[in-house]
Amino acid sequence: MTIAAGDDQIGSGLFGVGQDEAADVDAGRFLRMDFRFHAMVVQVTQGLFKPIPISAPPLPGNPATPAKVALGKMLYFEPRLSESHSISCNSCHMIGMGGVDLQETSLGHRWQHGGRNAPTVYNAVFDVAQFWDGRAKDLEQQAGGPLVNPVEMGTTETHVVEQLKGIPGYAGAFAKAYPGESDPITLDNVRKAIAVFEATLITPHAPFDRYLTGNDKALDATQKEGLALFINKGCVACHKGVNIGGGMYAPFGVVERPGADILPPGDKGRFAVTKTVSDEYVFRVPSLRNITLTAPYFHTGKVWDLRQAIAIMGSSQLGAKLTDDEARKIEVFLGALTGDQPIVTLPILPPSVTTTPRPKP
Amino acid sequence: MTIAAGDDQIGSGLFGVGQDEAADVDAGRFLRMDFRFHAMVVQVTQGLFKPIPISAPPLPGNPATPAKVALGKMLYFEPRLSESHSISCNSCHMIGMGGVDLQETSLGHRWQHGGRNAPTVYNAVFDVAQFWDGRAKDLEQQAGGPLVNPVEMGTTETHVVEQLKGIPGYAGAFAKAYPGESDPITLDNVRKAIAVFEATLITPHAPFDRYLTGNDKALDATQKEGLALFINKGCVACHKGVNIGGGMYAPFGVVERPGADILPPGDKGRFAVTKTVSDEYVFRVPSLRNITLTAPYFHTGKVWDLRQAIAIMGSSQLGAKLTDDEARKIEVFLGALTGDQPIVTLPILPPSVTTTPRPKP
Repeated sequence: MTIAAGDDQIGSGLFGVGQDEAADVDAGRFLRMDFRFHAMVVQVTQGLFKPIPISAPPLPGNPATPAKVALGKMLYFEPRLSESHSISCNSCHMIGMGGVDLQETSLGHRWQHGGRNAPTVYNAVFDVAQFWDGRAKDLEQQAGGPLVNPVEMGTTETHVVEQLKGIPGYAGAFAKAYPGESDPITLDNVRKAIAVFEATLITPHAPFDRYLTGNDKALDATQKEGLALFINKGCVACHKGVNIGGGMYAPFGVVERPGADILPPGDKGRFAVTKTVSDEYVFRVPSLRNITLTAPYFHTGKVWDLRQAIAIMGSSQLGAKLTDDEARKIEVFLGALTGDQPIVTLPILPPSVTTTPRPKP
Repeated sequence: MTIAAGDDQIGSGLFGVGQDEAADVDAGRFLRMDFRFHAMVVQVTQGLFKPIPISAPPLPGNPATPAKVALGKMLYFEPRLSESHSISCNSCHMIGMGGVDLQETSLGHRWQHGGRNAPTVYNAVFDVAQFWDGRAKDLEQQAGGPLVNPVEMGTTETHVVEQLKGIPGYAGAFAKAYPGESDPITLDNVRKAIAVFEATLITPHAPFDRYLTGNDKALDATQKEGLALFINKGCVACHKGVNIGGGMYAPFGVVERPGADILPPGDKGRFAVTKTVSDEYVFRVPSLRNITLTAPYFHTGKVWDLRQAIAIMGSSQLGAKLTDDEARKIEVFLGALTGDQPIVTLPILPPSVTTTPRPKP
């Protein structure tokens, strides 16, 4: 499928491409074509992408209740889940800051650097799997990872439960979230609660979503040109679906391998999970939702400039040398993927008592 | 002034002291006395303490506007004010967590430990001065300190301004907060905005405040006994006023110096500010508001058990060996100083752009 950006005959006005140069086209004919092609383009676009829903999707086997979401929010902001009592989920996935930490790789326990750039928590519920290598199948499984990673929160599964049982206020919160369970403070229930809270961190109503649902004016002319380029250049082969990415895996450097700073030979990506040679340097395709908020880019976080990241993707993944103007227009289109940011009221966390296990910073 | 805790004739029923032993007192006479003495006790108590107001107090020379409070909230949660872009005001003064960080001394830039325990930001606006040694006269002056402290946020005054000017979204936020100023992004305006936001972080409606404003039932019998002990043992000599502390300075170890772990000889407190010999080991008396939420205690944060802290205060400051039961009752009274915790919605912070100064973790 090709939508001819830059082809005056059918492209003009569709995405606004070359509108200035189309002044000599018969206006009536142009408008009729515009209408016809607009309908077609929306149909094609709707087939490739889906808008972010306006409410949190249900998680299989983990029904959300207000009590469980409330508990999950407490745990998301709970620094006492880390060995030092100074790092919470929100430390690296900051709500109000794009769901990321703005670092190349995250700072964790004792100022150690994580191995890869922290992906945004926003809309992560729509990704096919979690982490850059997809080693966690869902949010629930992901939530347990950083807790026990020695360079992240640095604790142990046993201690997470000890710690929470040592904070009296959590007994009631878990009991409400998991009614009928005799011993609800378990690692499994911690992960489930965090997952249902994280599923609420979605960003609907991006201009592109409004465009997808029929509002042609939601994108301006340059954004439409960027969208046409995004589709025609082939970005859409991987960056599609509800998250405009996040739905599949792809080798980084399929056409031309980027420099070792961006793709260091030591991190073979999904190969570490599957031990399959064809998965060397394969990573989960990142979502492009809210991408202008989540620099730096790539799993190494080595690229801070979105336009440069687009150019690298063009050469490494598509074998396309994008002009600076093309990269700029795609960048402008990506700006239309920023949705309503989650509005979250900080939870009041239950106090420690004398017997609460203490931090080990 | 003495209120006779433990004196059955006048003490019983006032604060509930010795109520069990008072069964043999004529009930009618007791109730009449109860009423008379209750009125007197409330009057005395009202003279010593003041309730937390229900709205933020005005700051001299720094009028609050909704735009300035909103900006201050953004800056309070802004990790890019630190050299590493990973530490904000909220890292050590966590909203939802008593306004503290639950560490002996705070973890700052490159995992360095701060020199003293982080005081709570809640109700700090009512303290006579800021920091344990009072070296900042108010919140506004305080706000500049941790920014440039090399073991805290580790940045420089110049870089704070550069950093904020490098984030385009702040231009509008400062312009709204400081209308009419041609160059509103200044360190002074950063401090002022943070201060007006912090002034909103107050905790009214503690049971003790409800008692102070005439609701005798707001304290239970043990809390009243604890209050009587708190007054009669002399705690109130320093811990008085709206913050039940925070209003004056006092030497730590005035009667008996505590161990070097709790009061290390190297930290001479206010002496560093005034260079006056009589200020050696003098510290600002901490507020006891929300004290059950803010362990560990003292400027060294070496004491995690509130009852132990009370016992140490008794011996070091008052020369009083409190019985375990007395310390327990005072502890129960202090539990009545926990007010409504501030409910804060996280701000949406403006995104970095390609030219925004980057973190130096």
